Amino acid sequence: MTSSQIPSPDHGSLAESLAALRSRKPLVLCITNRVTTQRVADTLLAAGASPVMADHPAEIGEMLGIADALYLNAGLHASQQAAFEAVRAALQATPRPSVLDPVGAGATPFRSAAIRELLSLPLSAVRGNASEIRALAGAGEGTRGVDSAHGSDQAAEAARQLVRERGFVVAVSGERDLIVGPGGAQGFQESWIEGGHPWLTQITGSGCALGALVAAFCAVLPPFGAACAAHQVFSRASEGAAQCAGPGSFSVQFLDRLSSARA
Amino acid sequence: MTSSQIPSPDHGSLAESLAALRSRKPLVLCITNRVTTQRVADTLLAAGASPVMADHPAEIGEMLGIADALYLNAGLHASQQAAFEAVRAALQATPRPSVLDPVGAGATPFRSAAIRELLSLPLSAVRGNASEIRALAGAGEGTRGVDSAHGSDQAAEAARQLVRERGFVVAVSGERDLIVGPGGAQGFQESWIEGGHPWLTQITGSGCALGALVAAFCAVLPPFGAACAAHQVFSRASEGAAQCAGPGSFSVQFLDRLSSARA
Amino acid sequence: MTSSQIPSPDHGSLAESLAALRSRKPLVLCITNRVTTQRVADTLLAAGASPVMADHPAEIGEMLGIADALYLNAGLHASQQAAFEAVRAALQATPRPSVLDPVGAGATPFRSAAIRELLSLPLSAVRGNASEIRALAGAGEGTRGVDSAHGSDQAAEAARQLVRERGFVVAVSGERDLIVGPGGAQGFQESWIEGGHPWLTQITGSGCALGALVAAFCAVLPPFGAACAAHQVFSRASEGAAQCAGPGSFSVQFLDRLSSARA
Repeated sequence: MTSSQIPSPDHGSLAESLAALRSRKPLVLCITNRVTTQRVADTLLAAGASPVMADHPAEIGEMLGIADALYLNAGLHASQQAAFEAVRAALQATPRPSVLDPVGAGATPFRSAAIRELLSLPLSAVRGNASEIRALAGAGEGTRGVDSAHGSDQAAEAARQLVRERGFVVAVSGERDLIVGPGGAQGFQESWIEGGHPWLTQITGSGCALGALVAAFCAVLPPFGAACAAHQVFSRASEGAAQCAGPGSFSVQFLDRLSSARA
Repeated sequence: MTSSQIPSPDHGSLAESLAALRSRKPLVLCITNRVTTQRVADTLLAAGASPVMADHPAEIGEMLGIADALYLNAGLHASQQAAFEAVRAALQATPRPSVLDPVGAGATPFRSAAIRELLSLPLSAVRGNASEIRALAGAGEGTRGVDSAHGSDQAAEAARQLVRERGFVVAVSGERDLIVGPGGAQGFQESWIEGGHPWLTQITGSGCALGALVAAFCAVLPPFGAACAAHQVFSRASEGAAQCAGPGSFSVQFLDRLSSARA
Repeated sequence: MTSSQIPSPDHGSLAESLAALRSRKPLVLCITNRVTTQRVADTLLAAGASPVMADHPAEIGEMLGIADALYLNAGLHASQQAAFEAVRAALQATPRPSVLDPVGAGATPFRSAAIRELLSLPLSAVRGNASEIRALAGAGEGTRGVDSAHGSDQAAEAARQLVRERGFVVAVSGERDLIVGPGGAQGFQESWIEGGHPWLTQITGSGCALGALVAAFCAVLPPFGAACAAHQVFSRASEGAAQCAGPGSFSVQFLDRLSSARA
């Protein structure tokens, strides 16, 4: 299985993507876990989007109606499943660009099964680490808690399989990021994004924040370009913040860099 | 409809208000949404109050019994409504200064209806942005998620109407803050508070944190003075923190300034 | 009642303990309150452990199966009790080093009763402030919200009583920290840990983060040594971060120091 390699969007188009995001300031409805909500919201605000967290099953449909995109984080807590059911009904009534973050898929059979059910939602993209993407494609368990035990290249085939079967974009975040989407001569398009910084793995919820940023860009770009733009912006902001004394300073400077990013 | 304009509390009285807060270190029971709890708690601690977050319906009455004030945040999540019912019973048994934060009122019909029901609680004050206050007064929908689509002056009449009908203080936070309370020659007193900084809109939960600070000051001052003091302290701390590289640094310096504020 | 006094682990052994923690990078399952989850997770990551927050009753057993230690935070919110019941069953099936944080024990009768029930779990250690430990031992109520109203020396007898009755290690955090464990010539061993900084009381969830760190060290050390190591690491990181402008900067520098701590 080969796939067409396309170059990453260049600086020019990234600057345009950022400008479009800030001009639109999309309202992103976030159905999140209980751990990383503040970091997700702060990240969206810093990047130029507008987060709203609302998980009451009776409100999700109405809130999706005024939202520009949906971010669905599957870091399963006890009250989240009623929200997921409401999301399914809401997306049928009100289609919106939607991104699933399969947090911890592969860590436990319970979680893997619950998250695989979500794959039948009308999703624009799925963003996870390599172990999570492998688990979604049925390539064995192996996520350790919520951290990846694999490199992105080890999830490339799983990502392509998911794209082939489901038709949505798949983003694999890691030391190198891989974005795979439908299209191209062989039925695929792929982009590898270099850069980033290991500090990102030392702060809680950086993956969740990145997934939410993919959703935000989906409000102004097609899903493949949106996933590329979000990963590039993240990568550069983390490089800009890397000169720091530790993870506390990094998370602060990362938000600063995200807010001032121009390309 | 005109209203009596009174000057904002001067620096002398603000210094006294801060000293009273820190001397009393009021215990503020916070019934909050899931997103902004840490920022609310950190803000209360930095200002000199003592937060306790407890939303178990079976504990709210007992916890209110040892609390000095109540902060009720209506950023509706799934398990919050049982807590609101417990709050109603608890406030009848144990009256306490109480502040409602109508997060996202006007964003969805569901939320607007749920929050309007809370207006019949024995509240000391309501603090919201202009769109939320307008929605509470029935001046049409229009909140976009949880962000305001209006300026504070556009909510002045709605605030006065709520004060007239309900008798509690209404605080409208925005580029300029407006505090309206019962009293004065025409049945009103109003105070406009200048200052603050747009960075406050770039960090999650700054409005929630301000609402909780109003509740904290209600433990040591009457509601109108409490709302004025909280908004002034917030405004000055944000100005002091404004020389920063972005929203990450701002939120850090804001807590530092709040902690060291003397007037 | 006297007890054997043993010296605190010296720098050499603390360096070894830290190295063991980072080498093992234990997966710590955290059942937490809704307020301090991000700070707990960020702290574990900075220290070198791997946090996973999962409170769905149907998943707790499976997640404990891949975890190295359990941190159980009793800052009771509405959905937490179903999780506690699942924890009980899971620990019977899958014994793991387990640390209980009795947040706010003594603040309300409801909470004291709920937390005392948790003492029958197979715990390795309990970490609380002086008022909480006194409340667990039945030495009267008196916790004010979640803050201590007593010094650690006032909880020494209560801590010894709990060790005698229950057999687990008890850590009392405060201006001075006291660790009491079974063993020694008189049936006890005790260690007092000096240092730390009052800024720790000005940031939300520092006690919770310390409790989670005790659990992390329990994955690589016996409980008494684990509690000593965690409190020492915390104490030194807070001293290293103390030169700061306020609680915002402190919390950032504290994570930086924790991440770079070598002894």
